[in-house]
Amino acid sequence: MKCTVLTVGTEILFGSIVNTNAVFISRQLQALGVDVMYHMTVGDNPVRLKEMLAHAYTDCDMVITTGGLGPTQDDLTKEMICEYFGEKNIPFPEEIKKVEAFFAGRTMTENNRKQAFFPEHARVLANPNGTAPGFWLEKDGKLIISMPGPPSEMQPMFLNEVRPRLLARQNAVLYSRNIMTYDIGESALETELLEFIDGQTDPTLATYAGTFQCTLRISSKRPTLEEARAAVDDMTARVAAKLPDNIYSIEGEDISVKVYNMLKEKGLSLSSCESCTGGMFAAAVTDIPGASDVFDRSLVTYSEKAKTEELGVSPEILEKYSAVSTETAKAMAEGLHRVSGSDVCVSVTGYAGPAGGTEEDPVGTFYVGLWHGGRCEAKRFTTRRPTRDRVRKNAVLQMFLQIYKCIK
Amino acid sequence: MKCTVLTVGTEILFGSIVNTNAVFISRQLQALGVDVMYHMTVGDNPVRLKEMLAHAYTDCDMVITTGGLGPTQDDLTKEMICEYFGEKNIPFPEEIKKVEAFFAGRTMTENNRKQAFFPEHARVLANPNGTAPGFWLEKDGKLIISMPGPPSEMQPMFLNEVRPRLLARQNAVLYSRNIMTYDIGESALETELLEFIDGQTDPTLATYAGTFQCTLRISSKRPTLEEARAAVDDMTARVAAKLPDNIYSIEGEDISVKVYNMLKEKGLSLSSCESCTGGMFAAAVTDIPGASDVFDRSLVTYSEKAKTEELGVSPEILEKYSAVSTETAKAMAEGLHRVSGSDVCVSVTGYAGPAGGTEEDPVGTFYVGLWHGGRCEAKRFTTRRPTRDRVRKNAVLQMFLQIYKCIK
Repeated sequence: MKCTVLTVGTEILFGSIVNTNAVFISRQLQALGVDVMYHMTVGDNPVRLKEMLAHAYTDCDMVITTGGLGPTQDDLTKEMICEYFGEKNIPFPEEIKKVEAFFAGRTMTENNRKQAFFPEHARVLANPNGTAPGFWLEKDGKLIISMPGPPSEMQPMFLNEVRPRLLARQNAVLYSRNIMTYDIGESALETELLEFIDGQTDPTLATYAGTFQCTLRISSKRPTLEEARAAVDDMTARVAAKLPDNIYSIEGEDISVKVYNMLKEKGLSLSSCESCTGGMFAAAVTDIPGASDVFDRSLVTYSEKAKTEELGVSPEILEKYSAVSTETAKAMAEGLHRVSGSDVCVSVTGYAGPAGGTEEDPVGTFYVGLWHGGRCEAKRFTTRRPTRDRVRKNAVLQMFLQIYKCIK
Repeated sequence: MKCTVLTVGTEILFGSIVNTNAVFISRQLQALGVDVMYHMTVGDNPVRLKEMLAHAYTDCDMVITTGGLGPTQDDLTKEMICEYFGEKNIPFPEEIKKVEAFFAGRTMTENNRKQAFFPEHARVLANPNGTAPGFWLEKDGKLIISMPGPPSEMQPMFLNEVRPRLLARQNAVLYSRNIMTYDIGESALETELLEFIDGQTDPTLATYAGTFQCTLRISSKRPTLEEARAAVDDMTARVAAKLPDNIYSIEGEDISVKVYNMLKEKGLSLSSCESCTGGMFAAAVTDIPGASDVFDRSLVTYSEKAKTEELGVSPEILEKYSAVSTETAKAMAEGLHRVSGSDVCVSVTGYAGPAGGTEEDPVGTFYVGLWHGGRCEAKRFTTRRPTRDRVRKNAVLQMFLQIYKCIK
């Protein structure tokens, strides 16, 4: 199937909101093996909307729309789809009942009844998260799926109502798995896995480059879930054998979640002390619900005074080796263990820029220290294209990876 | 002028990347008074690209494209624009020299020369941040502006090369100012300013709702910069008089930057201690280059043990009032002042969820404590629709606002 994603909303054309609906739907369709040919966005303008619809169907047999299903005069998506398909827009009794029940005891304007009208041959897509249902219409070899604009309503509707129907049409079940890699770039990853990628139709392998990290998605579409899962599992094993030192998760977890789960499983407590990351590591850990099961504290010792007072880093070390050095990173992690008693103590100090840095350690350089089981080590890292944001993100990633490598 | 924003890139159709180019360009065009009629996205497919171009010009007199200007076989935007406009794609000698200089001493493939070819009547738009320049072509009453896809190249090109040319066509200069508000929602803001918004053509006022914060943009388009600025300044003064307690900046600064600037100006040092925000406040402060001028440390005391050991919060207070209470927030801020000696000490403790909370203090409740000049106070806050992320963001905002209100 070939599909156009048609988003309706003046606020998108104004740039007031990011078109996350197109992203969400495209990812979902790609995973289902549906080709997305176009994204189109129009404002709340009926003529242009109808033109776009006609244009989309010159190439595609499927259009998914979001937006313009609400009760106001501006909301005209449904009316234009009816005109395009030559359908009557009629009240659906079951839906009228639902709208009336929703407004029971309150004033319901005539406008609200509009939300219970649908193209006569459409099937309603339930919306438990809002008042405007979606619909699914097949006519003349064309499929249109129309959903509300708010992502909190559209996304569950897609997952619960649309996705199963699309899969059923294909007589196939899709199963995917995200393999999380480390210490390997996208092109090196593709080169390593070339034999699996080239000419492979099922399972398929696709790489996604993130910031300093690369994800590999393995997908299979088979008649049954068991077959699809078996094919993905088999390919996962082959990929894992090929990359023994570059995969930290075959379950798609973020490195922070992976490390959290490992620590929790082993009953280890964690503390951190941060200089250049300034709290970002702790913020990432505490982003996980239940972080308190493993996380004790983070000491964000931004000034040298704080490093000495909070962590007992001696002024001599700071003077002799500077605050950004192997020695300081080690002294920070050791000091953190003394004050916190945590099983795993990680530290970081570096030059995030834009100012600072030395000839040997330019902006982008940082040191990660790690105390665990009575041993303490520190390692030096650099950052490509070292903007402040990238340096700090890289440092947080390396802190998690150092913990992962140490306790795995 | 009426414009279509046409983004070219298969990775957008895959949903692998968010179409931030459309957002950036749309906002810029809206500020310039150019109407955006469509967003369109096509993959690296020449036929569809040309069709979209034709479709765009049925309604619009201007198209802006991004993407597809690179050296590879896939990059065909320029070739299709030439076909559509009946232009020859010819080498521009100045640009050939630049490409050759770029590859001096390295192997240059014939492909790279492609980036020095342009439609014969085009003007080149310089790209100091990459190898593919953009171009500007006017023909048959139609304007096309073509820029590279990477935002780090496209955005400076728009601001430095495109925006001034568009303004020059309008014989006008645009001047805008972002007014940053607090403690007021978008609809209340609109109601308060109705007399300035309704029927106002210049300056114009527009509100933008962020997460827990609302920005007001005042813009004027006049023949000279002086006139535009004077009109905006005059309206700013009228708005400020109307909202004496809801504006923290008329210079568009984020609250974190505003607070940082105020502290730096007054020579005050800052430390924080965080429970539910888990380092996010410190991360926001240290996101500012030069943060070390005011910021000393943040103690992320996630466990009760850490609150007692690091901040000296007595176990009796934690026992009697709980870790999420006015008393604990105050004891944290006071303890932080004792250990850091900083002039301003801010604390936060709360229920970020999803688990936790009590009947009186459900998930979303948090307390912000503030020590300054020998006085310590704490205040209770709640959060609408309290997801973990929203609670934490709201808490960080309120920490900054409490500091702002105290030292302004």
